[in-house]
Amino acid sequence: MSHQLLKGKKGIIFGALDEKSIAWKTALKCYEEGAQIVLTNAPVALRMGEINKLAEACGNAPVIGADVTNMDDLKNLFEKSMEHFGGKVDFVLHSIGMSLNVRKGKHYTELNYEWNAKTLDISAMSLHRVLRTAWDMDAISDWGSVVALTYIAAQRVFPDYNEMADAKSLLESITRSFGYHYAVKNKVRVNTISQSPTKTTAGSGVKGFDGFINYAEKMSPLGNATAEDCANYIAVMFSDLTRYVTMQNLFHDGGFSFTGVTAEVIEQMEK
Amino acid sequence: MSHQLLKGKKGIIFGALDEKSIAWKTALKCYEEGAQIVLTNAPVALRMGEINKLAEACGNAPVIGADVTNMDDLKNLFEKSMEHFGGKVDFVLHSIGMSLNVRKGKHYTELNYEWNAKTLDISAMSLHRVLRTAWDMDAISDWGSVVALTYIAAQRVFPDYNEMADAKSLLESITRSFGYHYAVKNKVRVNTISQSPTKTTAGSGVKGFDGFINYAEKMSPLGNATAEDCANYIAVMFSDLTRYVTMQNLFHDGGFSFTGVTAEVIEQMEK
Amino acid sequence: MSHQLLKGKKGIIFGALDEKSIAWKTALKCYEEGAQIVLTNAPVALRMGEINKLAEACGNAPVIGADVTNMDDLKNLFEKSMEHFGGKVDFVLHSIGMSLNVRKGKHYTELNYEWNAKTLDISAMSLHRVLRTAWDMDAISDWGSVVALTYIAAQRVFPDYNEMADAKSLLESITRSFGYHYAVKNKVRVNTISQSPTKTTAGSGVKGFDGFINYAEKMSPLGNATAEDCANYIAVMFSDLTRYVTMQNLFHDGGFSFTGVTAEVIEQMEK
Amino acid sequence: MSHQLLKGKKGIIFGALDEKSIAWKTALKCYEEGAQIVLTNAPVALRMGEINKLAEACGNAPVIGADVTNMDDLKNLFEKSMEHFGGKVDFVLHSIGMSLNVRKGKHYTELNYEWNAKTLDISAMSLHRVLRTAWDMDAISDWGSVVALTYIAAQRVFPDYNEMADAKSLLESITRSFGYHYAVKNKVRVNTISQSPTKTTAGSGVKGFDGFINYAEKMSPLGNATAEDCANYIAVMFSDLTRYVTMQNLFHDGGFSFTGVTAEVIEQMEK
Repeated sequence: MSHQLLKGKKGIIFGALDEKSIAWKTALKCYEEGAQIVLTNAPVALRMGEINKLAEACGNAPVIGADVTNMDDLKNLFEKSMEHFGGKVDFVLHSIGMSLNVRKGKHYTELNYEWNAKTLDISAMSLHRVLRTAWDMDAISDWGSVVALTYIAAQRVFPDYNEMADAKSLLESITRSFGYHYAVKNKVRVNTISQSPTKTTAGSGVKGFDGFINYAEKMSPLGNATAEDCANYIAVMFSDLTRYVTMQNLFHDGGFSFTGVTAEVIEQMEK
Repeated sequence: MSHQLLKGKKGIIFGALDEKSIAWKTALKCYEEGAQIVLTNAPVALRMGEINKLAEACGNAPVIGADVTNMDDLKNLFEKSMEHFGGKVDFVLHSIGMSLNVRKGKHYTELNYEWNAKTLDISAMSLHRVLRTAWDMDAISDWGSVVALTYIAAQRVFPDYNEMADAKSLLESITRSFGYHYAVKNKVRVNTISQSPTKTTAGSGVKGFDGFINYAEKMSPLGNATAEDCANYIAVMFSDLTRYVTMQNLFHDGGFSFTGVTAEVIEQMEK
Repeated sequence: MSHQLLKGKKGIIFGALDEKSIAWKTALKCYEEGAQIVLTNAPVALRMGEINKLAEACGNAPVIGADVTNMDDLKNLFEKSMEHFGGKVDFVLHSIGMSLNVRKGKHYTELNYEWNAKTLDISAMSLHRVLRTAWDMDAISDWGSVVALTYIAAQRVFPDYNEMADAKSLLESITRSFGYHYAVKNKVRVNTISQSPTKTTAGSGVKGFDGFINYAEKMSPLGNATAEDCANYIAVMFSDLTRYVTMQNLFHDGGFSFTGVTAEVIEQMEK
Repeated sequence: MSHQLLKGKKGIIFGALDEKSIAWKTALKCYEEGAQIVLTNAPVALRMGEINKLAEACGNAPVIGADVTNMDDLKNLFEKSMEHFGGKVDFVLHSIGMSLNVRKGKHYTELNYEWNAKTLDISAMSLHRVLRTAWDMDAISDWGSVVALTYIAAQRVFPDYNEMADAKSLLESITRSFGYHYAVKNKVRVNTISQSPTKTTAGSGVKGFDGFINYAEKMSPLGNATAEDCANYIAVMFSDLTRYVTMQNLFHDGGFSFTGVTAEVIEQMEK
């Protein structure tokens, strides 16, 4: 059901890999809520071609490749988007994360530091790069809204999450730091949403992910939040109904973050 | 502009004193978004009669007096509300706070402990009483949403806020504790919204309030959040778009909570 | 081994019930570190007589009964203590908690509100009463240090901890609120220490305590902190080596508070 | 006055630039408390020669140069230290930070990304490199203690602190992540201390630092913590009296972190 919450708004969605992606579902939801969309992802991810189905489902949204560590690519993305929209961008979703150390099974105590530098650049500094590109081009409307996806490993240790925990901490700090400046200058809001573990193609790469998702389910009074619900929450954060929320990390996790233990987990521990 | 976000939903709004109240604006917003409303306040507050204007503006919403420290009153409130709605309640706003020590100018180090017990009972335990009444009567629909208003003094000291800081900490703890149980049982969500200082009739009672509101304005990258915007945010939290958010304290404060200092404040300090 | 960390200091220890108590071990440790001690507890707890052994072990420390909800008792306690010490008090340990609802097995959703009011008064407001008595009598030396024991249920829900979670939240807020004023006036510091679950006689009253202590052990990278180690940490917080730490909640929990999950717990979940 | 708190312990101190440095004062304090010390800093910093005075004052402590981004240097440092000590290291102080963007006056929205990568590597990843070197060499004793210095800009925005805020967030995350693994393996503790702004030679580089230090003084109920007091607190964290504290960020700031506003600041705002 559409509430036309984003009627007339225009946004860029990073990171829609396939139909399991939160970004994918967010694009669909924003479109349903009346927004125009530009889709973007790394050129290598675009080659899979999946995203074209999404583009079609979003009223033939343009798909513009961009390597988030490349400032020229980002400039091109915002230029083309503004051309397409005939004006500024109202919202941006940053759903980007990649860890070579995780992929290659390196333990946290054995990180390859060159890969780690890439992880930080792609997964965290990329938010700075995106915001700074928009800032330089004055590409985001006043009261615009930027959301980046994060995970509670930024606050507490989940050993298998590895260096991505550090990357998410950095991402959340950038959210606050750039959020401050963008609020002062253009009333632009920047927030992170800290989502339950979600069975996306990206998430599945993490070792021990299934055991963990099961634990999180048992530790969340409402159960794990679904990707669809996350898309709804993101849409709300892009709307004009949440204009004074900025520099926040918002847990969308069924209560996991403030639950110390549940009856279900205690039971399991007693087995 | 209405998005019919709350179409078909039914809710109880506590604490609409006069048209400056956040609760007042929330009732209007919820009605505009398609909800049916029951209004309630302490009998003594109702006597002022202001609330009847609001009731009219909300489609002749019933006004039912209830002392939040009286379990019979609360039972009566939920009974009459369910009768009126012909079914369960979907949302509740708890906007209730009162400190005799503040009113009478008692310094935090000179509290009258009997008054303090009343402050805690009226301003914090009342949330437990409301939730427990609903729990016992099974009066809130599955996935229902309860919001209580709070203030950042629950986390950091604002000396003039006095014992209300302690009451708000207690309120936020009850939100988590009862939120856990209600999520497990009925998927009911309970959250607090931590709002910028707002020039309501209640807020004005606090000593040094104007100097403080000015400070908060300078310390918030977006400026202080207005009561209207707060009403919008509450409506969003009552909607089905935020179903997996529970047991949270959500700052709606223009970024104040994560700002250590601003250029404006530093300038003022250098005068 | 003594470092004479508290040489020449004088302190009041609340809550040493028996030799398992953290307060008991703290008294011994402070004495060992060169402090003079006054012991106090509720008159009903003193009747058990155990505390006299402790008094002896602490160089015949005076034992002065005090009901912490009674201002006359507290005044008497500080008067007698200052008489005994021949001067002001340098440190105070608040290790006080009692919940009738927990004792009588009332579920959190079924609280008896009169008992709850007592729980809040005894377990939390008592810290305000103690500090305020000292404040009125100017009974604490400049740079004195006050520590209250708390538990992480103040931040996250542990269902069986019941209303004590709310009481501990209130206690931590009072720590900040009164800590602010006492720092400004006399440089007196007030902090809470949030200790691992500990097998004390008090702790044992909580339902499901053994299962929980086992869970906490598995969730703490260093294991649960012992009562002896807690006593050491408290002694450090009373010393002059921690003079600029105030209004803090300090986790002494083997890393539990910042651990989201451990390998051990995940393994157990997979059984 | 010495308590011989660190009698028989051996530690490495990074970052003693000159006598204003917190690391300098920490080395002196640890030596006074009975520890043996190895001093280290970047080769370029050593060239100033100041550190030799400190080495002398610490019983002719060896001075071993190490570039913290160079794994060979770090390996050499630990090898030489263990040779000198005739055994493992008990504690390490990480007091390292450098931002070319800050030095060159680049605004946060105009970062040079190559410099930023260096800032993150030197100021944050260096902690991982130090810990990992020790881990690989099994160079830290069981129950050893590692402290890194940080600043509250990791939690809240202080605009002039610039990219160092992000670096400190990353540092604190590494503290938790590596702290988890090292606790499980060797009971080694890793914590950060978040110190008041301090007039060190490093701190003075930050724009608007004097105005800010003045603001922090007025916003801290105890006033800003001194470097000497910080050294005391670090010594305590290296001692056996704090063995169950790990993965924490400990504010040593006179109460700044939990103060929302003070009477003094409100007064100034009203001018």
